[in-house]
Amino acid sequence: MAAMELCPKFEEAFQLLGKRWVGIIIRVLEDGPMRFNKIAEQIPEISKKMLTERLKELEEEGMVQREVFPETPVRIMYSLTNKGEAITPALTEIQKWADHWVHVKREEK
Amino acid sequence: MAAMELCPKFEEAFQLLGKRWVGIIIRVLEDGPMRFNKIAEQIPEISKKMLTERLKELEEEGMVQREVFPETPVRIMYSLTNKGEAITPALTEIQKWADHWVHVKREEK
Repeated sequence: MAAMELCPKFEEAFQLLGKRWVGIIIRVLEDGPMRFNKIAEQIPEISKKMLTERLKELEEEGMVQREVFPETPVRIMYSLTNKGEAITPALTEIQKWADHWVHVKREEK
Repeated sequence: MAAMELCPKFEEAFQLLGKRWVGIIIRVLEDGPMRFNKIAEQIPEISKKMLTERLKELEEEGMVQREVFPETPVRIMYSLTNKGEAITPALTEIQKWADHWVHVKREEK
């Protein structure tokens, strides 16, 4: 069964995307390359420490690219890679489903 | 931002779907109502204990329905609910993405 063979990849994708803030960071970066502080501004509830961590994880997964421009002061831009861009239709589908079917059980944590 | 408000629901969905075997169990049940042993047959690598556990979790999430028919011997059938059926387009999108972009890092575990 084809679905069966895809299983580990599939679950790996879900595990990454199920991490707190990952979906929203990708959504924010859909607007184009952005500095750290600009991303942070758009997600007021996330701590800088957590945002740093998640961006690093997304970079390790090849979904976000971090570019350093050697200007004065140095400029660091984050953007979606092709792999990162490619996940957005799936995010949209999950979001539609969750919006309709999932009741929020946890509040802020 | 609308995406922001959906965040917790969205992550909850991903956390469930990221659990080992959940995606494949839903895929198998797309073929219609099925007995436990028939599901187990289609996923040879899953233990009966794990399949029992996952079906219970899916039932608790309202994605799978368990029906007991009081025949002799008793017949127990599992099927997708509307909520379970509704996730399948999202599974397809994630699967396409994972197939193209995700490299399997873990082997059997």
